[in-house]
Amino acid sequence: MNILIVYAHPEPQSLNGALKNFAVKHLEQAGHRVQVSDLYAMNWKAVLDANDSLDGQAGARFDPSLDSRLAFEQGRQSPDIALEQEKLRWADAVILQFPLWWFSMPAILKGWVERVYAYGFAYGVGEHSDARWGDRYGEGSLAGKRAMLMVTTGGWEPHYGPRGINGPMEDILFPIQHGVLYYPGFDVLPPFLVYRTGRMDDARYSTLCDALGQRLDRLWSTAPIPFRPQNAGDYIIPELTLRPEVAPGQSGFAAHRRSSFAGDAESGPA
Amino acid sequence: MNILIVYAHPEPQSLNGALKNFAVKHLEQAGHRVQVSDLYAMNWKAVLDANDSLDGQAGARFDPSLDSRLAFEQGRQSPDIALEQEKLRWADAVILQFPLWWFSMPAILKGWVERVYAYGFAYGVGEHSDARWGDRYGEGSLAGKRAMLMVTTGGWEPHYGPRGINGPMEDILFPIQHGVLYYPGFDVLPPFLVYRTGRMDDARYSTLCDALGQRLDRLWSTAPIPFRPQNAGDYIIPELTLRPEVAPGQSGFAAHRRSSFAGDAESGPA
Repeated sequence: MNILIVYAHPEPQSLNGALKNFAVKHLEQAGHRVQVSDLYAMNWKAVLDANDSLDGQAGARFDPSLDSRLAFEQGRQSPDIALEQEKLRWADAVILQFPLWWFSMPAILKGWVERVYAYGFAYGVGEHSDARWGDRYGEGSLAGKRAMLMVTTGGWEPHYGPRGINGPMEDILFPIQHGVLYYPGFDVLPPFLVYRTGRMDDARYSTLCDALGQRLDRLWSTAPIPFRPQNAGDYIIPELTLRPEVAPGQSGFAAHRRSSFAGDAESGPA
Repeated sequence: MNILIVYAHPEPQSLNGALKNFAVKHLEQAGHRVQVSDLYAMNWKAVLDANDSLDGQAGARFDPSLDSRLAFEQGRQSPDIALEQEKLRWADAVILQFPLWWFSMPAILKGWVERVYAYGFAYGVGEHSDARWGDRYGEGSLAGKRAMLMVTTGGWEPHYGPRGINGPMEDILFPIQHGVLYYPGFDVLPPFLVYRTGRMDDARYSTLCDALGQRLDRLWSTAPIPFRPQNAGDYIIPELTLRPEVAPGQSGFAAHRRSSFAGDAESGPA
């Protein structure tokens, strides 16, 4: 299979750099083809602007969505954007790997999403009307592919637990897993998380690599997070709210996962 | 009072540009001093790297936290970073204004946070031990100041409602309001939100400006979001989980707001 790793850490000699190298080697040894978009090494342009079209801004003023659509439709995107889209088309699975900085992805990776996720490629796909709100959340250009986050943080796991001060990691990652990955159609696997990166020694690193290797071996067999597809009946269109009989009484991120009917997996057997 | 607006939109002739100009004028007419960090106009460097210290990386390898700490302590930060920190010290209130892109802030603003929020300035402040986990979440270098988000989105309000497909706006913004603003000490005011920006006409724009003007007039009287301070007894240290008797049985972002005892304000009087 073809795997794209989009990697965002400034230092090759970091824990992230080591885990990235491990992942590439492990996947290649299993017979897969791997490409890495090493955003810092590529000096990736993080800032979305009118230069993302070879024609500059199309109208009297720059419109991030409309100018993106025109450039995508007319084959006038900046070559770095088109190349990343080609890698996404090539990939059967995509891994976004990054350190959690201020409870989200580093700016350089956010800018990769903003620029590569063009109108017509990752959003604005399919019919948009009062009866149908596009092909998204389970459908879209990247449907049929798998995606997974690999995230490191210096904080302790309980700080990110159900009642931890930072908020649950699952919820912190929801805007990425649901809003960035599920939105254009990816099946999203549970993330690979590393806490307390400041306390790493050889033994722990070895255990970590074993765990990562097992996750990579199961890239095609792990069950995705059961987010609810937009266009399969759970949502009222165009309001895009859950129908009253779906997850009755629930609100918030968890209501958009099918398993929330029976409580989260972490709560144990129902 | 002194107000800093950190503004992240690429097009001056946009709705965001107009609202920013309105806010500046409105605040100045009320007698306040206003500075604007117009990140696109400043060509703000979005990407955190070793060049953020005048000395380059300190050790054999670049360490984002440690190199930030050294540069901050020794007055060797890149001048653009030091200048933004000076604006933050000057400000009594800070407004972060941006369009919601992929359920978070634009990369250029994320990079402002990552670079300006140096170790020793916005994190790593105060005693760090097993008995005390620093001055953060309600304490820190920016305590006593107020902050507010101004956020625009093309989506409809119900899409961001309690059962809307994108998740509740309050939860989407939690990593920013709690993780970026409350963390270094800001009192965080409820956000000023504009939905469905594609449907704007003169009448709606006028109403919008009226509402924004009223929010700005109440910048010093609006009650902040009642996030729970880290060091006032609600959390077990060092696990930093809520004590069992605090918000019993609750989990997730809402448990970190005091009002969650009685349900959210939107639920009406208890």
